[in-house]
Amino acid sequence: MCRRLLMMALLSAAFILMVADSVLAQTVGQGTAELFQYHRGMDVFFMLMLVAFLMLFIKRYQWGVCLATLLVFAVAWPLYLLIHSEFLGLSLGIEAAIQAAFAAITLVIAIGVFLGHISTIHYILTAVLFVPAYMFNEWFMFGYLAGVADAGGSILVHVFAAYWGLGVAMGLRNPSVADEPKRTTVHSVSFVWLASMLLLVLWPSFVTALLPANEVIPAMINCFLALTASVLTTYLACYLLQRKIDPLVYTYAILAGGVAIGATVNLVTPLTAWIIGALGGIISTLSFIYVDGWLHRRTGVLDTMGVHNLHGVPGIFGGLVAMVVAGAPGSQAVAVLGAILIGLVTGIGSGVVLRVFPRPELMLDDAEAFPMEEARSGEADVAEPTPAMAAAGSSMVRETS
Amino acid sequence: MCRRLLMMALLSAAFILMVADSVLAQTVGQGTAELFQYHRGMDVFFMLMLVAFLMLFIKRYQWGVCLATLLVFAVAWPLYLLIHSEFLGLSLGIEAAIQAAFAAITLVIAIGVFLGHISTIHYILTAVLFVPAYMFNEWFMFGYLAGVADAGGSILVHVFAAYWGLGVAMGLRNPSVADEPKRTTVHSVSFVWLASMLLLVLWPSFVTALLPANEVIPAMINCFLALTASVLTTYLACYLLQRKIDPLVYTYAILAGGVAIGATVNLVTPLTAWIIGALGGIISTLSFIYVDGWLHRRTGVLDTMGVHNLHGVPGIFGGLVAMVVAGAPGSQAVAVLGAILIGLVTGIGSGVVLRVFPRPELMLDDAEAFPMEEARSGEADVAEPTPAMAAAGSSMVRETS
Amino acid sequence: MCRRLLMMALLSAAFILMVADSVLAQTVGQGTAELFQYHRGMDVFFMLMLVAFLMLFIKRYQWGVCLATLLVFAVAWPLYLLIHSEFLGLSLGIEAAIQAAFAAITLVIAIGVFLGHISTIHYILTAVLFVPAYMFNEWFMFGYLAGVADAGGSILVHVFAAYWGLGVAMGLRNPSVADEPKRTTVHSVSFVWLASMLLLVLWPSFVTALLPANEVIPAMINCFLALTASVLTTYLACYLLQRKIDPLVYTYAILAGGVAIGATVNLVTPLTAWIIGALGGIISTLSFIYVDGWLHRRTGVLDTMGVHNLHGVPGIFGGLVAMVVAGAPGSQAVAVLGAILIGLVTGIGSGVVLRVFPRPELMLDDAEAFPMEEARSGEADVAEPTPAMAAAGSSMVRETS
Repeated sequence: MCRRLLMMALLSAAFILMVADSVLAQTVGQGTAELFQYHRGMDVFFMLMLVAFLMLFIKRYQWGVCLATLLVFAVAWPLYLLIHSEFLGLSLGIEAAIQAAFAAITLVIAIGVFLGHISTIHYILTAVLFVPAYMFNEWFMFGYLAGVADAGGSILVHVFAAYWGLGVAMGLRNPSVADEPKRTTVHSVSFVWLASMLLLVLWPSFVTALLPANEVIPAMINCFLALTASVLTTYLACYLLQRKIDPLVYTYAILAGGVAIGATVNLVTPLTAWIIGALGGIISTLSFIYVDGWLHRRTGVLDTMGVHNLHGVPGIFGGLVAMVVAGAPGSQAVAVLGAILIGLVTGIGSGVVLRVFPRPELMLDDAEAFPMEEARSGEADVAEPTPAMAAAGSSMVRETS
Repeated sequence: MCRRLLMMALLSAAFILMVADSVLAQTVGQGTAELFQYHRGMDVFFMLMLVAFLMLFIKRYQWGVCLATLLVFAVAWPLYLLIHSEFLGLSLGIEAAIQAAFAAITLVIAIGVFLGHISTIHYILTAVLFVPAYMFNEWFMFGYLAGVADAGGSILVHVFAAYWGLGVAMGLRNPSVADEPKRTTVHSVSFVWLASMLLLVLWPSFVTALLPANEVIPAMINCFLALTASVLTTYLACYLLQRKIDPLVYTYAILAGGVAIGATVNLVTPLTAWIIGALGGIISTLSFIYVDGWLHRRTGVLDTMGVHNLHGVPGIFGGLVAMVVAGAPGSQAVAVLGAILIGLVTGIGSGVVLRVFPRPELMLDDAEAFPMEEARSGEADVAEPTPAMAAAGSSMVRETS
Repeated sequence: MCRRLLMMALLSAAFILMVADSVLAQTVGQGTAELFQYHRGMDVFFMLMLVAFLMLFIKRYQWGVCLATLLVFAVAWPLYLLIHSEFLGLSLGIEAAIQAAFAAITLVIAIGVFLGHISTIHYILTAVLFVPAYMFNEWFMFGYLAGVADAGGSILVHVFAAYWGLGVAMGLRNPSVADEPKRTTVHSVSFVWLASMLLLVLWPSFVTALLPANEVIPAMINCFLALTASVLTTYLACYLLQRKIDPLVYTYAILAGGVAIGATVNLVTPLTAWIIGALGGIISTLSFIYVDGWLHRRTGVLDTMGVHNLHGVPGIFGGLVAMVVAGAPGSQAVAVLGAILIGLVTGIGSGVVLRVFPRPELMLDDAEAFPMEEARSGEADVAEPTPAMAAAGSSMVRETS
């Protein structure tokens, strides 16, 4: 009997231990993981703002890019959470906050296609039109389809951003933007270098933001491997094709490794990650140099910030690579195709709606929204010709004047 | 007897488990929370430096702002810790490091009122005068009063910064600063956009830096909701009142949602957070457009960086909102009033002390502290007139020359 | 017997508890520490990019610095991991990722000595030559020697960077770089202020990146104390010696406190940390003002970015301070001497190899790698003389033209 007692005592102790263990594990797991996720989430918000600075190369249109970014963020992020919690009845935690940040960053990328095509105030409406379309695509990828690999947002963020943006630009039909001057200066491009280099080092937090804690470190290493690969191959591709490095190709295409690795960052070996990144950089460079002009001629759409070359093409590549390495190639292909089609259709629809409103009087120009007299006066590279210059027959005159 | 034995065995096991559980929970809780707090603290230090860049719009007075920020940080942070640990005998951990960073960031905000009013070297003395005053107000709010809600520093940081700074400017009585030129350029303001946008996304780490771990995620969401609200309402208020967006109002006032939500960030629902932020943005915009000039005429004090409009007024609003939602409305009102009065009195005292020393030869001008010849020569927008310009009767001449 | 049973039951329960406890502790300890280390690691990558911006003061050579930084990072980081995991058979986790980032940041610092001395494409080869040398020194310090204190990289990173870089410059023998113009502008230096101030606040993550979790908070406080001390003493030293503050001395030397505290950041009291930082700032300032020119005359080597003054001299000082406070003064001295010698010898070897390749046609000039016509045209401070200027006999002409 005492042996039975001993057994019972031990079993009871073991049972209590198991319960305690699982409770503790859960506490530790959830608590730590959530706190940890807070900071990866904060990095995503940081990146959202840096995306604006990646687009600051047109000196006379810097503040407008910042303002548009802030406005779409200010509408899209709370709107996503509102639909998420009020209409869909889902919980409001760090996971939702990051998903909403993904939606907002997708929109910030997408407006890069048609920045300067619309008046500043209409970015508010743009965000209202975008969020339901994004959430529909999100549901299509992860609710309707099964087994789609896209932890780091190659498809959800980058492909959808590019094609929704292109759709809007098509719906808007405002080809005269292409004729506007896009003068860069040394420092306007230095801001782009800053943004590109900081985006690069924050990228691992983006692709791991929604991963379980135990997958974060390997995915971080994969992400950096893909990015270092695209930094290198982009340089070589630029050098071989054009000898001189175009900074507005280079600072963008080096990030293509991060775009391309998104779908498979938690599924591949380090070597495969490096190869995906290397190809991503080359594909993006080729897209900037060859596809961009062709697309402009074909569609009449000026992709102001080259969104299609950095996000569209490398995103499709990354999404399709997952057909080979992930489990469900069918779903994967449908997800890529779906993001393109849903993006184009809802984008064109949004563009048609935005077209109802009057066009901006000034395009790609901060003076559309801001009083620019003081800041521009006396700055040789943006100023209207001063009397002295005019008197001397100066050629230091902006293309617009 | 065996049943009793079993009971005893089970009870013993349960007891051991309980002890182990509490030990573990403590380890996990404390360890994790501290490590987690390290990074929120690091974000606060990051923000301290960004506050300097928020004030970089006067092109001929950029480096001086950076230098003043570094000097007051270098004195205030260790001085707070010295008093905290040596004189008050409190422990030196992450909590103290963050509290000292709060003191230092409050001072960096405060000097915004009188930047350019004093010589660079006197910022060292300024920090020595500030820290005891700040610590007295901190003790008044949380040691003397009971139940004051101010987790995110609406009162402790923002109200105190504004009124201490105004006090110093009043004590200094140096009205001629108002006549100095404050020329901005496109890029000097682009630095301000960068600082404002990065401050915005880091703000949740500031308001949650001293919160217990379990309150961090909800407070983060509340903070972002308040900020997205003020980004939107500030735009609408600027647009409706002035049609054009003044970037030196906009880049500042969008942060007022963060200032206003500080006192109640861990106490309100998401919807209330959004409303507080929305009102904060409007109030700050109104303050920039209407109160600023009135205050200048009334007090003769030029608030160089508009500290009162971003930190003072929205801080008071945020502090008073807590009267409604928090438990101790009496304490809350006294805390706000106390911060204003303690700030003004100790600030005026400090200003009177600083007034003993000779005034700077150059005000709002980097040349007061730095050799500027090389960096300025050849830059059309800051240079003295070159022979070529003079010969041609150029109007590209700075207001000072 | 039943008492024996009870004993057995309790012992069994205790044993199970112990096992469970140790398993849990390990999970918590390792898991949390790793997740925590992820973010300190991310800060290190962030700093790597900021080091580039610390070197952006020469306006006509900004983009080239960014490109060189990206290229050496893109080669050095994966190469370190490749050797680490494939050749040395070590595991690939967060520890390795950070160690590789240390290697890469050391190289980014080191190229500061000879930036502009070689063609852009040769930075790829530079990184291939650097990594084995760095890893040999790392093995010498921590594998061959015993008891060397250098948690924060005073010796491993800073001393080695300075002397390897000087070695390369000696091997290259390209003295004509010294004659190239190095014009700064207000904003080119404002980028340096930004980089310096953000590097300063991120520094604690660098010196604690490889520390065990329980040493992180005290080391963070020590690091900030050292940095606030050097911010203050650098100002006082500059002010007393030169009256005016040279921003290209100040923005660099304020970081010397972080360099100097590296070796002993986890071993000293707060007061000692402050003193080490204070001396570090003074030593670095003296090195910039007095040693720099002497070294240039002695060796014929132009240290483009003053690496020796910020990293070399304060690094040696920090490494030697550890002789007093750490346990193994002999090892410590040998480690410092070893880093200097291994750095110089392998650096000179690398320089000799790089000298085989043709010299760049343009030095310290973005036009070596980028098409600069558009960005420079119309910018008075970098532009070739425009017709208007030429007609008016303008003096607004760059030294190069």
